Amino acid sequence: MVLNLSEQKLSIPEGTEDVLGLDMRYREHIINIIKEVYENYGFNPHKTPILEYLETFNGHHGEGEKLFFHIKDKNDKDLIARYDLTVPLARVASMYPDLPRPYKRYQIGPSFRDDEPGKSHFREFTQCDADIIGADSLLAEIDITVMAHELLTILGIKNFVLKINHRLLIQALALKVGLQSKEEHLGLQRALDYADKVSKDGLQGVKNKLLENNIPLNIANQTLMEIESFANLLTQFDDLQNQINQIEKFFDNCPSAAKAAADLKFIMSYLPKNVQSNIKIDLTLARGADYYTGYILEGVAIDTEIGAILGGGRYNQLVSAVGNANEAGVGLAFGLERLLSVLKSLDYIDKNIELPSKILLANTNVEFHPKLFVIARELRKYYDVDIYYNQSPFGDIVHFAQQNKHQMIIELIGKQPLIHAVIENETMQSKVTDILNNLDCI
Amino acid sequence: MVLNLSEQKLSIPEGTEDVLGLDMRYREHIINIIKEVYENYGFNPHKTPILEYLETFNGHHGEGEKLFFHIKDKNDKDLIARYDLTVPLARVASMYPDLPRPYKRYQIGPSFRDDEPGKSHFREFTQCDADIIGADSLLAEIDITVMAHELLTILGIKNFVLKINHRLLIQALALKVGLQSKEEHLGLQRALDYADKVSKDGLQGVKNKLLENNIPLNIANQTLMEIESFANLLTQFDDLQNQINQIEKFFDNCPSAAKAAADLKFIMSYLPKNVQSNIKIDLTLARGADYYTGYILEGVAIDTEIGAILGGGRYNQLVSAVGNANEAGVGLAFGLERLLSVLKSLDYIDKNIELPSKILLANTNVEFHPKLFVIARELRKYYDVDIYYNQSPFGDIVHFAQQNKHQMIIELIGKQPLIHAVIENETMQSKVTDILNNLDCI
Repeated sequence: MVLNLSEQKLSIPEGTEDVLGLDMRYREHIINIIKEVYENYGFNPHKTPILEYLETFNGHHGEGEKLFFHIKDKNDKDLIARYDLTVPLARVASMYPDLPRPYKRYQIGPSFRDDEPGKSHFREFTQCDADIIGADSLLAEIDITVMAHELLTILGIKNFVLKINHRLLIQALALKVGLQSKEEHLGLQRALDYADKVSKDGLQGVKNKLLENNIPLNIANQTLMEIESFANLLTQFDDLQNQINQIEKFFDNCPSAAKAAADLKFIMSYLPKNVQSNIKIDLTLARGADYYTGYILEGVAIDTEIGAILGGGRYNQLVSAVGNANEAGVGLAFGLERLLSVLKSLDYIDKNIELPSKILLANTNVEFHPKLFVIARELRKYYDVDIYYNQSPFGDIVHFAQQNKHQMIIELIGKQPLIHAVIENETMQSKVTDILNNLDCI
Repeated sequence: MVLNLSEQKLSIPEGTEDVLGLDMRYREHIINIIKEVYENYGFNPHKTPILEYLETFNGHHGEGEKLFFHIKDKNDKDLIARYDLTVPLARVASMYPDLPRPYKRYQIGPSFRDDEPGKSHFREFTQCDADIIGADSLLAEIDITVMAHELLTILGIKNFVLKINHRLLIQALALKVGLQSKEEHLGLQRALDYADKVSKDGLQGVKNKLLENNIPLNIANQTLMEIESFANLLTQFDDLQNQINQIEKFFDNCPSAAKAAADLKFIMSYLPKNVQSNIKIDLTLARGADYYTGYILEGVAIDTEIGAILGGGRYNQLVSAVGNANEAGVGLAFGLERLLSVLKSLDYIDKNIELPSKILLANTNVEFHPKLFVIARELRKYYDVDIYYNQSPFGDIVHFAQQNKHQMIIELIGKQPLIHAVIENETMQSKVTDILNNLDCI
């Protein structure tokens, strides 16, 4: 073993993190809530590798492909650390045609983007995805919207909004302002996507990005005007159904807008009132629009600096783009680290984590207690038991127990062990006393 | 979105896998068992990133470093996909001196080695590690040995052996056959390590590797002879304490052997009889001997082709080698994929997985049932509920329910939904009937 220089400064890569102590308990608590809700809605778990062939991912993420972490293996094959969990899902759907359809799976695992790291912007981050492959019906959109609402509610986020949009409305907007070519449509999508995901400048950000994408100034200005008029129009109606009724007219009976309005109307007609009350139609919501083909959904926690914590929608061409099966897709994803930041800022953490009852078994004799492991074995039938392996002053042991949130110390000093409560718990104390008294070795 | 050629043959990198359907349920079931036992023994979860700086890992894995998956990020920093979970633990111990000591953590997560893939030999695999940093006492060795035994027992592996060895016995063997230089000692360790981990040729493999490491033929032959004599000597004594008593004499009262024997004797004196009965002292057990400094442990399932499924031991110089704190370490690790292979070959899987009770809600009307999501919401308070989103013939729906192990289909055909049992369950049927009857919307 080669010793490194002792002055080496240890660190972890920027945009990655160690999750230690109570933070890890908290993280697992939240993951379990998400899993339970996903399963409650009929999703099954699956898992794909972190390493994937570059060629599987190539061609699906546009600008995002600059963020791939590239790896070359021994056999000179090009791999990446996966960029997301959706392309691997499309790969699975294509490679395993015998999986039951619709295929409903959830997956919680890390994805990787060699991006500029920032506060709550990680290069290694955890996505919690739930997707449905092979369902054309709008019932799938409704189900994921209801599920998103339930999850945000269960997580204790009282003040949130579910923004929705439809890819065909973005298309209708492009047509309304006179953008004709595919290139120009793409420019509009990029501009909205940029403002939606990256910019803090709102409409000014959209305008700058439109100009960068070679949209002429007059059309850029008109686009912003249309977006504002649309938003103003909607504020005149409290009721979502009424808002949607206005959409067709606003877009001059454009067939794309009519189809989008019909979809949204159907979806809204099945949503419970409590879900509807958190919904807001937002024409600027794009979420990587060259990916989604229909309904687009985003969950935003109000009163926090971090914006979107979940996103989703319908993507009907991804599976065929990755493989060759032609299958519809609908899904949503939580960004776990962003969600945890939001929950922390909302003070959710301390109120909601229950640690397991844990006992510390400590030997303070000069000689080790001969029945140390017999006692440990018996107590472990009922409680988590930590052994304090070292010979230390009792004060150090108490300090250790407090740091680790142990509820009780059992000191093995004589024949009859001494029970010390770190946290008062009478039921536990009387039960432990019984267990120890019934041990014939003591 | 660029469409790939439809004839593209999709695949995942060799030595990685998709875990789908019931296999994933099974995997999670086993992970939960391991977590529960680790927590029962006082270990707390933590998590470190998958990407680490190359310099953190450099210098700790000898030949293993050829297996690193290298990544260069945008800022031209050298990263790797982590090789194991132990070096990151040493990094954490060094970077966070305020973490309570002893620091007991478990971590279950992927590691990566660009190795030759094979059956149950993955390039992306999952390690389940439990380690103790900052405990010098042999009580730590005892606790992890008892825990290993309990885990193998709880996992239903009836026929297993816990091989043990001590790094100082390997040193004593080197001295006994006249290997003097550090280089020669390392050669012996490598040869044992090779035979232990890689070779199916037993002692012949050790001999070949000794010769490759420039050990002269006569010493190589003598080494094999000593290993065989040692093994033969031990078979003459049923009792572990008696076996250990012989060790000192066998190694001509070499101080290294005396210290090893004293350690093993202490450890055995505290082990319960049922644990002792599975233990076998094995001088050829090396497990990367330049890593371990004392006790070495390995769990092997007998009657299966796959050998070791857990390994561990004491490593007292790793933390100081990675960082600068001088701290003792003891730990063990399960290779999850190997363990799953063993359990599958032992037919554990079918007997031990209970799937959640799941209902399939299917709409077979031409029109969707107006209260579809109200019914779903009510049922989801008690059961996992899957909605069949598409309009399909009832036969397809039944087939889907069977494939997905749904217990019941509720067909929304008229005002009063029809209940179809996929799996007979009278309690569930009467409860679901009650729930539906109490819904005022039906």
